[in-house]
Amino acid sequence: MLYIGVDLGGTKMAAGLVTRDGVILGKASAPTQVGLPHEQILKNMASLIGDVLSETGRTADDIGAIGIGSPGSVDDSRGTVVFANNLYWRHVPVRGELQKYYDKPVFVDNDANVAALAEMVAGAARDRRNLVLLTLGTGVGSGIVIDGRVFGGSHHVGAELGHLCVQMDGEQCTCGNKGCLERYTSATALVREGRRALIDYPDSIIATKAGGNLDNVTAKIVIDAARERDPMAIDIFERYIHYLALGIITIINAFDPEVIVLGGGVSAAGDFLLEPLRRHVKEHIFYKDLPHATVELSPLGNDAGIIGAAMLGAIESGGL
Amino acid sequence: MLYIGVDLGGTKMAAGLVTRDGVILGKASAPTQVGLPHEQILKNMASLIGDVLSETGRTADDIGAIGIGSPGSVDDSRGTVVFANNLYWRHVPVRGELQKYYDKPVFVDNDANVAALAEMVAGAARDRRNLVLLTLGTGVGSGIVIDGRVFGGSHHVGAELGHLCVQMDGEQCTCGNKGCLERYTSATALVREGRRALIDYPDSIIATKAGGNLDNVTAKIVIDAARERDPMAIDIFERYIHYLALGIITIINAFDPEVIVLGGGVSAAGDFLLEPLRRHVKEHIFYKDLPHATVELSPLGNDAGIIGAAMLGAIESGGL
Repeated sequence: MLYIGVDLGGTKMAAGLVTRDGVILGKASAPTQVGLPHEQILKNMASLIGDVLSETGRTADDIGAIGIGSPGSVDDSRGTVVFANNLYWRHVPVRGELQKYYDKPVFVDNDANVAALAEMVAGAARDRRNLVLLTLGTGVGSGIVIDGRVFGGSHHVGAELGHLCVQMDGEQCTCGNKGCLERYTSATALVREGRRALIDYPDSIIATKAGGNLDNVTAKIVIDAARERDPMAIDIFERYIHYLALGIITIINAFDPEVIVLGGGVSAAGDFLLEPLRRHVKEHIFYKDLPHATVELSPLGNDAGIIGAAMLGAIESGGL
Repeated sequence: MLYIGVDLGGTKMAAGLVTRDGVILGKASAPTQVGLPHEQILKNMASLIGDVLSETGRTADDIGAIGIGSPGSVDDSRGTVVFANNLYWRHVPVRGELQKYYDKPVFVDNDANVAALAEMVAGAARDRRNLVLLTLGTGVGSGIVIDGRVFGGSHHVGAELGHLCVQMDGEQCTCGNKGCLERYTSATALVREGRRALIDYPDSIIATKAGGNLDNVTAKIVIDAARERDPMAIDIFERYIHYLALGIITIINAFDPEVIVLGGGVSAAGDFLLEPLRRHVKEHIFYKDLPHATVELSPLGNDAGIIGAAMLGAIESGGL
C-alpha cells in the first residue's frame, strides 16, 4: 500500500506519493495562495494530489490514506486546523474538505510533529520509538514522538520546545515571555549576534563576508567565519552551542527520549556543530552513568514534511 | 477487586489496601532499614502487606495486584529498581522477590510518577488523563501521566522536571548543571533566601521568627513572614512565585497537560501561593487565547504514594 503526504506551508504546498518505508516515488508542489478561501486551497490540494498520482501512473485505489502536515495548532482527532497564524486559518475542517475529493482516511497533524515521524521511519531515528526533533531555523520548532506516535499534548497546541524558558528575565520573545530557548538557539539568534559583532568589530571576518552590510549577515556567514577562526564568530558560535546543549539537557530531563534530532538551517553546519555539542551535553548531563539520548543531525532535509505526513496515514491506518 | 499499594521510602515503607476508586481501606508502615540485604527488605515488605490484609480482614485472594512506588530509576517492564541512591540499590528485582510471597501481578514505578497517578484517580486531576505533578519539597520532584499512563521516558530515569534549566549559568545544582528549576522553586530555595535575609536584616520578621538563628529558618517561616507583610519575605516569596510560574509555563510549552498539580511542603501555603501563581502564569503564557493547563494544589498529602502505587496495579491489570 502507498500513502500520500502533503507538506502544507505558508508559501507552497508539496505533495508526494510515499512507500511505507518512507521512500518518495513522486512529488509535486504548488503555491498555497494564502488568502483564498480555505475550500479553494484544499480543492487545489486535492488537485495536486491528483497530479502526483497521474505522474506516477497510479490511481486513488493504490493509496491507503492521505496525511497532511500543517503549521499551527491541529486537532488530530477531528482532522481540523484549529489555528494557523501564517495561513490565517481558524477551525478549518481539512479532513472534511479533502474527503469531498477522496474517499480515503485523512489524517492531519502539526508540521513539526510530522517531520519527527519522518525521522523515525526514514531519518536519524530509524528503529527508535521515542524522539524529539528540533528545527533550528528562523525560530526553533519541535516535534515529539512517544512510543511511535506523534505527541501533541492535551490542547492540540503541540509541543513548543522553542519556548522552554532557559533564561529567567532574559531576551524578550515574541510569545510574550522572556528568555525562551529560541531566542538563543535559532538561526535568527546567530544573525542577531553576528550583526552586533559587525557593528563592534568592522574588521572581523563576519564584517568582511557581509560586505560591511548588516542586512547581509546570515547564520551561515557567522558559522563560516567561526570555521575560519574569527575570534568574534568563535565566541558567538561557542555560546550558541552552550545554550543549545543546555536546551538539549532540559529536553532529556523532561522527555528522556532515545534520540534528539537536529534539523533546520543551522544543522547544515554538520560536525562543526555536532561534535562540540555532544561534548557539552555529556559534560553537563544529570545521570552521567546511565544511558541517555544521543544527538544526531537530520538527513532528510525538505522531504521530511512529505514523508512524515504520509507516515501519519500509514501509522493511523495500521500500515506501519 | 482491591489493590495493594506500597510507598517505599528511604526511612520507612507504608502499605495500604486500596479500592479502585483510590480509597484506602487500611494501611500500615514499618522502617525500611536501609542497609539490610534487599531480599530481607522485600521479605519485610511482603510481611507488611500480610499485616494490612489481616488487619482489614482480607486475604491475598481479595487483591488483583500489588503496586510499588520506589525512589530512583525503575525499569517498569522488568519490575526492577535500576538505581536508587537513598536505598543503595542497583538492579534490584523487586517483582521477582515479592512474587516469592505473593502469586500476583507486581508492578513497580518511580514514586513521583506513582503520586501523579494518585492525583488522576483520587486527587486534583480526577477525570483527567494528562497531568504533571510537581512536589515542592527539599528538592523538586515530578511525575507525569500521559493518556492515563505513567510516563517514564526511554531510559527508565523518569522525568526530572526539577532539573529543567531555567537560568543559564545560574546557581550550581547537585546534578552537575547550573540554574536548575529546583534551585529556585524548592523549599530549600526559600530557606536559602530566608537565611540570606536574616543575615542582612536582623530586624526582619524572618529573623524574629527564627530567633536570630540561621538553623531555625524554614520555608514556613519565610511564607508566614510574607503573610505578615515583612518586606524581605514578600520579596523572596514574590520571586519564588515568579520562578515557579516560569517553570510551569515551560512545562506547559513542553507537555501541554490538562492540569499541573502542586504537592510537597510549600504547597501547604494554599491560596497565598496559588492565586498569585495563577495570575503570573496567565500573564506570561504563550497561546493566550487557547485553552491551557490549570494549576491546582494536591489534596492527597502523604497518602498519594500508597494510592498511586495501588492504582499502578489497577491500571496495568486492567481494573481501571
